[in-house]
Amino acid sequence: MATDWNPALYRRFEGERTRPAQELLARVPLPRADAVVDLGCGPGNSTELLVHRFASAEVVGIDNSEAMIESARERLPQARFGLADISTWAPAGDAPDLVYANASLQWVPDHPTLLPRLFATLAPGGVLAVQMPDNREEPSHQLMREVASEAPFSTFIPDARGVRTAILPLAAYYDLLSTQAAQVDVWHTIYQHPLPSAEAIMDWVRATGLRPFVDRLPPDLQLRFVAEYQRRIDAAYGARAVGLRLLAFPRLFIVAQRKA
Amino acid sequence: MATDWNPALYRRFEGERTRPAQELLARVPLPRADAVVDLGCGPGNSTELLVHRFASAEVVGIDNSEAMIESARERLPQARFGLADISTWAPAGDAPDLVYANASLQWVPDHPTLLPRLFATLAPGGVLAVQMPDNREEPSHQLMREVASEAPFSTFIPDARGVRTAILPLAAYYDLLSTQAAQVDVWHTIYQHPLPSAEAIMDWVRATGLRPFVDRLPPDLQLRFVAEYQRRIDAAYGARAVGLRLLAFPRLFIVAQRKA
Repeated sequence: MATDWNPALYRRFEGERTRPAQELLARVPLPRADAVVDLGCGPGNSTELLVHRFASAEVVGIDNSEAMIESARERLPQARFGLADISTWAPAGDAPDLVYANASLQWVPDHPTLLPRLFATLAPGGVLAVQMPDNREEPSHQLMREVASEAPFSTFIPDARGVRTAILPLAAYYDLLSTQAAQVDVWHTIYQHPLPSAEAIMDWVRATGLRPFVDRLPPDLQLRFVAEYQRRIDAAYGARAVGLRLLAFPRLFIVAQRKA
Repeated sequence: MATDWNPALYRRFEGERTRPAQELLARVPLPRADAVVDLGCGPGNSTELLVHRFASAEVVGIDNSEAMIESARERLPQARFGLADISTWAPAGDAPDLVYANASLQWVPDHPTLLPRLFATLAPGGVLAVQMPDNREEPSHQLMREVASEAPFSTFIPDARGVRTAILPLAAYYDLLSTQAAQVDVWHTIYQHPLPSAEAIMDWVRATGLRPFVDRLPPDLQLRFVAEYQRRIDAAYGARAVGLRLLAFPRLFIVAQRKA
């Protein structure tokens, strides 16, 4: 069975991980909201932004990790948190004014069904706001699959190319939502995170993208996998003039508003 | 002689053009500033953002277009505006706390010299904040050069590939500034502007990127050039589900802070 998420490791790059959450929220065109849902709230860093922006709203955080929910409850006693799968989640009470999903939907399959379904849960004038890493073709993620496809790892990871649901091209999200929406705004931001070493890049992805690979391996192969991956990361991300490595990190953003 | 800029045409997409200016400013890590310079202020839309953010600062807008400076002065009587070339500009008074250049440095050559020079004008702890369109390889701009390289236009535009200074790769800007700076943040955002038609895409670039091409042509060929360009734009940017075209528009951002 897969290990649960590690909130401490995830929080290590919290500033960098919270920035896209802020930038997504900055584009939500709502002066106020009564009901707000944070889908895939993790340790509550994104939920905290929502609580600040919509002080009078009921904010509910949803995650499928008990460790994350636990961590979020400690951080934000004023919000409600619940354990649920996004793929089957539906609002329990009033239709939400904002369904906000920061760095979570990339783990949920079947976007052509999922996104219109989430959009349909909104109150009139409500907003679906989504941010997803779009780094599948970056060296950081290509190299995971490359190592996983080689012996001895390939015995345990026969489906290296299919480990994470591929997200759709950006225009496909526009088409999926624009026929229902008053307005749809889609964009990419490619961040460049300066990190001190190849090991730091490895640490970054270890809390998220690397998990499904490492989780499939027996304990004695896990360290070997990580070492081989880090060796290739070291070669792929050369040191810049000041010695740091720049980790390019593309993220896809969607903000769609229902007709009032 | 080249015609001057057209502030009315430029302002037609002001909302879309101001968004990157806002997003650049949002990343400037200054709680306050005394002296702020807006390099390439255009009709003053970016200067207005600076005046709002730094209410107690002296804000100076610089542009090399008289029409733009005129338009900016009408809009913002409380700011100072001056006619100057960015390539030779230097602060007249105190070292600035913020040198802000939104969508202007792409018109100025020799970035390996220019950017360190601008950075060196800053007060200790000061910030250089730059945003530039990075759309040279987008169909919108490739097709300008393609049409310009064909007869009869090529007679008048022999240097179609060199019309605009190519900006550097993002990591090169990081290297140029990070050796001098306390911190450097670089990123790309690729906006997707929904526009009603190929003509609207053409209108968008007519106020900026298309100008150096059209300006070189005799009057009778200008319309022909624009029509041929628009025909190819129509083919390259297909209609989405709701009939709109998505104009992908990559922009490069740099925020570099001097040591205090």
